[in-house]
Amino acid sequence: MRQSILFSKTQREFPKRETFINAKLLIRAGFIDKLSAGIYTFLPLGFLVLKKIEKIIREEMEKIGGQEILMPALHPKENWEVTGRWEEMKEIFKLKAGKKEFALGPTHEEIITPLVKKFIKSYRDLPLYIFQIQDKFRNEKRVKSGLLRGREFLMKDLYSFHATKEDLDRYYQKVISAYFRIFERVGIKEKTYLTFASGGTFSKFSHEFQTECPAGEDTIFVCKNCNQAINKEIKNDVKSCPNCNGNSFEKKKSIEVGNIFKLGEKFSRPFNLTFLDKDGTKKFVQMGCYGIGLGRLMGTVVEVFHDQKGIIWPKEVSPFQVHLIFVGKKEVKEISEKLYNELIKEKIEVLYDDREKSPGEKFVDCDLIGIPLRMLVSEKTLRENCVEFKERKTGKIKLVKIQRAKDFIKKYYAQ
Amino acid sequence: MRQSILFSKTQREFPKRETFINAKLLIRAGFIDKLSAGIYTFLPLGFLVLKKIEKIIREEMEKIGGQEILMPALHPKENWEVTGRWEEMKEIFKLKAGKKEFALGPTHEEIITPLVKKFIKSYRDLPLYIFQIQDKFRNEKRVKSGLLRGREFLMKDLYSFHATKEDLDRYYQKVISAYFRIFERVGIKEKTYLTFASGGTFSKFSHEFQTECPAGEDTIFVCKNCNQAINKEIKNDVKSCPNCNGNSFEKKKSIEVGNIFKLGEKFSRPFNLTFLDKDGTKKFVQMGCYGIGLGRLMGTVVEVFHDQKGIIWPKEVSPFQVHLIFVGKKEVKEISEKLYNELIKEKIEVLYDDREKSPGEKFVDCDLIGIPLRMLVSEKTLRENCVEFKERKTGKIKLVKIQRAKDFIKKYYAQ
Repeated sequence: MRQSILFSKTQREFPKRETFINAKLLIRAGFIDKLSAGIYTFLPLGFLVLKKIEKIIREEMEKIGGQEILMPALHPKENWEVTGRWEEMKEIFKLKAGKKEFALGPTHEEIITPLVKKFIKSYRDLPLYIFQIQDKFRNEKRVKSGLLRGREFLMKDLYSFHATKEDLDRYYQKVISAYFRIFERVGIKEKTYLTFASGGTFSKFSHEFQTECPAGEDTIFVCKNCNQAINKEIKNDVKSCPNCNGNSFEKKKSIEVGNIFKLGEKFSRPFNLTFLDKDGTKKFVQMGCYGIGLGRLMGTVVEVFHDQKGIIWPKEVSPFQVHLIFVGKKEVKEISEKLYNELIKEKIEVLYDDREKSPGEKFVDCDLIGIPLRMLVSEKTLRENCVEFKERKTGKIKLVKIQRAKDFIKKYYAQ
Repeated sequence: MRQSILFSKTQREFPKRETFINAKLLIRAGFIDKLSAGIYTFLPLGFLVLKKIEKIIREEMEKIGGQEILMPALHPKENWEVTGRWEEMKEIFKLKAGKKEFALGPTHEEIITPLVKKFIKSYRDLPLYIFQIQDKFRNEKRVKSGLLRGREFLMKDLYSFHATKEDLDRYYQKVISAYFRIFERVGIKEKTYLTFASGGTFSKFSHEFQTECPAGEDTIFVCKNCNQAINKEIKNDVKSCPNCNGNSFEKKKSIEVGNIFKLGEKFSRPFNLTFLDKDGTKKFVQMGCYGIGLGRLMGTVVEVFHDQKGIIWPKEVSPFQVHLIFVGKKEVKEISEKLYNELIKEKIEVLYDDREKSPGEKFVDCDLIGIPLRMLVSEKTLRENCVEFKERKTGKIKLVKIQRAKDFIKKYYAQ
């Protein structure tokens, strides 16, 4: 894409009133725009990142058998009265259509459970794994942390349905692996801990995925023995690590990037979601639910990967693979144009800074936007028949012959 | 995909209380589920169709320079007060977060205009084309027509920004061509008419795209001379065809599948969206807006393409390319399994009915779901080392040698 026609532009200053680095950087670099507290627009660059994250999550959900659907955001009040959460959940947005009342879905257990009830009759219909990537709404009080906490936010929610607890346990472990694959591809796996959190009626613990980050609003205690963690909420109730019994912990600030929950019969009981088992008796379906916020994941990546100059996108979630820049006169620009078209032909994702700006301005924008590779064309590089690659992460510079530039990029991304 | 694990199932009966064929068929065939009047869940099959429609629209929007973003559904009341539509638009859902009031976005002019204002300064920043594919909310009174009219619905909305009326006029024509390409790929172009509708302050007419259909809620008058149409609303004000001056019309029932509007300065004035022109003066930006409802398009396709037995999907929007069915015992199934795996390797999209059901049930489901090609494996076809293809649309049957099946499918879809 040509930067000259890119509708969002970088700003010289950080936005006022934003305290979190993800909001500061993403707004200044032109990835998002704030409409209201906790409500953001994804601009073209931000939308590209969002689509990359969506793709990763979708692929990993499909690998563990997830079938994708799309449920509505408008939920009839009746559904939420069945579980008592119409009154219980304080953050539900409520509205009226004539005499009928609706909730704006903060989550979808109240919708998926009666939906699945229409199709599940026997043990043969189980297990079942259903997910969606969909807009959620929560009337949050504190919404000052950019994309980390929103009143409106995109979420992947997966729901699983099982004939037995053992089958739920087995799938729960598969989801944990899938989540770590997602965090690995997004770039934050090394800083992300499987964390014990409070459970419910049907299981002693639930799990969160917490990413270590100084700006995080959560606190976790990482077991020095097994590297799993306990969240602050349950720290007092748990003497030793529930995983390995170790009792030496390190306290860290963190961001919750995912949570998973064994619901058991919590929702199948009120909605009477049963199945006919092999032995001829009716039993309640065992359920699990598994969430990841896409915007929050994007915000977390920025909190973890940035420096003074801007964002440092991990390879797989960067809006583009290469930021092509030219510095020089007409002849240099002509060669850049040619290179741009060649890269596009090779299906390499390029942001091409074709603007007539000073080299300084271009370099500043480039560091701010944070694409992993900068490809510079200048009189100096052309004298050696080369382009210059600079890795955003390390600052490492390498001159590469023009005709080998494509291969250099492909190799970089294949690593 | 294996039909045995497909979570949605076909139903024996049409749903009660649905009067429109799109809702009847899509619910019975397991594409959608009704949560409340005008509020639907897209089940796995319906979600696949939705994604195909989304892909077509996205590609055609990108071809005419559209940059994709994602705006929120929660809109601050202030934005809507600027234009007076907070009171004016009766179908706005309204809600509160603390003392702050929000609209659930029924459209996004009130959001995109101030957003673009942040980035447009000079004529050099124009023109600009921005679109999104996003969930809209309207508190409609009449919501009995399935996917044709919803309280919550996915819409593609494109907004264009220009320095001059002439440039808006030029782009408006480009959008008309893009829309016809979309309708062609979706399969309904031949039945879809560019239709004059009432304009506004800034243009005499707007345009709708109306698809001929007996179940349509709209009425159009098609000019026998030029094949463009006039909608009922303006029929009395318009003596002859605004396009060719012809005055012989044919009355038809139709569904509105898209509309486009020259907004002119309607929104740039209240939001003071100006730019510095070449001559050094400030001028208001000229705007256009262009909508297509994705669900409505899906519903329209079903209204237009079905028969007594079920849906007849056009090639490019079918959830799968082939419906593979076997009739027979173990050996037949084994060969079907092999064929299924081979087709998948070739990246052919297959729904494979691997269930142990009677041939009759399988055939009924197959016709109901409406994938363009049925591929049957039976003892009879295997005796000739063949599979049998049946085209859903024509009922035409053809025996094809097993080893040539893949090529047959590819050729069918390349036509």
